[in-house]
Amino acid sequence: MKLYDYLPSGNSYKVRLLASYLGLSYDWINLDIHKGETQTPQYKALNPAGQIPLLVLDDGRKIAESNAILYFLAEGTPYFPCTAFDQAKCLQWMFWEQYRHEPSIAVARFIHMYKADERADELPRLMERGNDALSVMDNHLAERLFFVGNAPTIADIALYAYTHVAGEGGFTLSDYPNVTAWLDRVSDHPKHIRITDKPAT
Amino acid sequence: MKLYDYLPSGNSYKVRLLASYLGLSYDWINLDIHKGETQTPQYKALNPAGQIPLLVLDDGRKIAESNAILYFLAEGTPYFPCTAFDQAKCLQWMFWEQYRHEPSIAVARFIHMYKADERADELPRLMERGNDALSVMDNHLAERLFFVGNAPTIADIALYAYTHVAGEGGFTLSDYPNVTAWLDRVSDHPKHIRITDKPAT
Repeated sequence: MKLYDYLPSGNSYKVRLLASYLGLSYDWINLDIHKGETQTPQYKALNPAGQIPLLVLDDGRKIAESNAILYFLAEGTPYFPCTAFDQAKCLQWMFWEQYRHEPSIAVARFIHMYKADERADELPRLMERGNDALSVMDNHLAERLFFVGNAPTIADIALYAYTHVAGEGGFTLSDYPNVTAWLDRVSDHPKHIRITDKPAT
Repeated sequence: MKLYDYLPSGNSYKVRLLASYLGLSYDWINLDIHKGETQTPQYKALNPAGQIPLLVLDDGRKIAESNAILYFLAEGTPYFPCTAFDQAKCLQWMFWEQYRHEPSIAVARFIHMYKADERADELPRLMERGNDALSVMDNHLAERLFFVGNAPTIADIALYAYTHVAGEGGFTLSDYPNVTAWLDRVSDHPKHIRITDKPAT
């Protein structure tokens, strides 16, 4: 299979991280979103939304949306629970991540990393919402090792991706000790890779 | 089971609609978000996020996030596909709905319905993004009856909820003929209910 990706993207990193856990091999195609490489007619023929990540299976079928790709790859593995309730709780946190977490924490990081000064007026609201999201996580993790059950699942992978680089968006992770302890637990996985690690191609 | 709800909420309506399809009975607790009924200590003890919908199972376990509730209720029914790929495509559209569709179309509707004039400056951006989302749907539906496969799934339910009331947010649905034809197909379901229909309690 092929993964269309952009190395600094937390959404794409989710897929790389799970693929590393599972020992999956894939062709890695890195597109630079800042050079318009996801907006070419060729790429938009593959993904009309012009977004990464995009997983293309060997038979040509395609899956977009990082968390849907995680679901597809994790089904039947230890990274997706086997009971209907725990599966729904994983997805609850993954929908929450895309609705409440990513739109504040990832966007604040984007504005800082790429010096998108024209969007700087969004930062106070993004900081408020991002800190709300980190508080929700910190409270949830007060008595838990992982988001669902006692072992890492795709809910942890989905939330790890942008949380561990929240500092790049101006957030102070040390204010959330349960979150930082959980980040350490996730990165202790023997097959952990960093967001900056290029996959073998 | 119990469903904590707010009748005009499209997110809650998704759950009511699927429950109607499946003939599920449940206790219906309607909370008025404008009277702060989701922000009381009692409700926040149930759902720390202070949001509806919330499904409480008979054993007290709880599931939040409308699309995670849909997944939980639909598993093993005709409304969630049985192949891994089609399941992932359902979830792809449901993640897209929460990331690209709801934050523009539902928020524009909210500003109009509740005369939230202090947020009126958001409307031009919301209209642009909402129309982008409707265009994506219209293109996808050009040669398809439903979002995934040939029968309604929870992807259709998730997208129907706020699309069919997009006019209340100032959108012109007649500009999207494939969308309006699909809305008619969804509402033709023999167990269809309207967003204004109160469930029996």
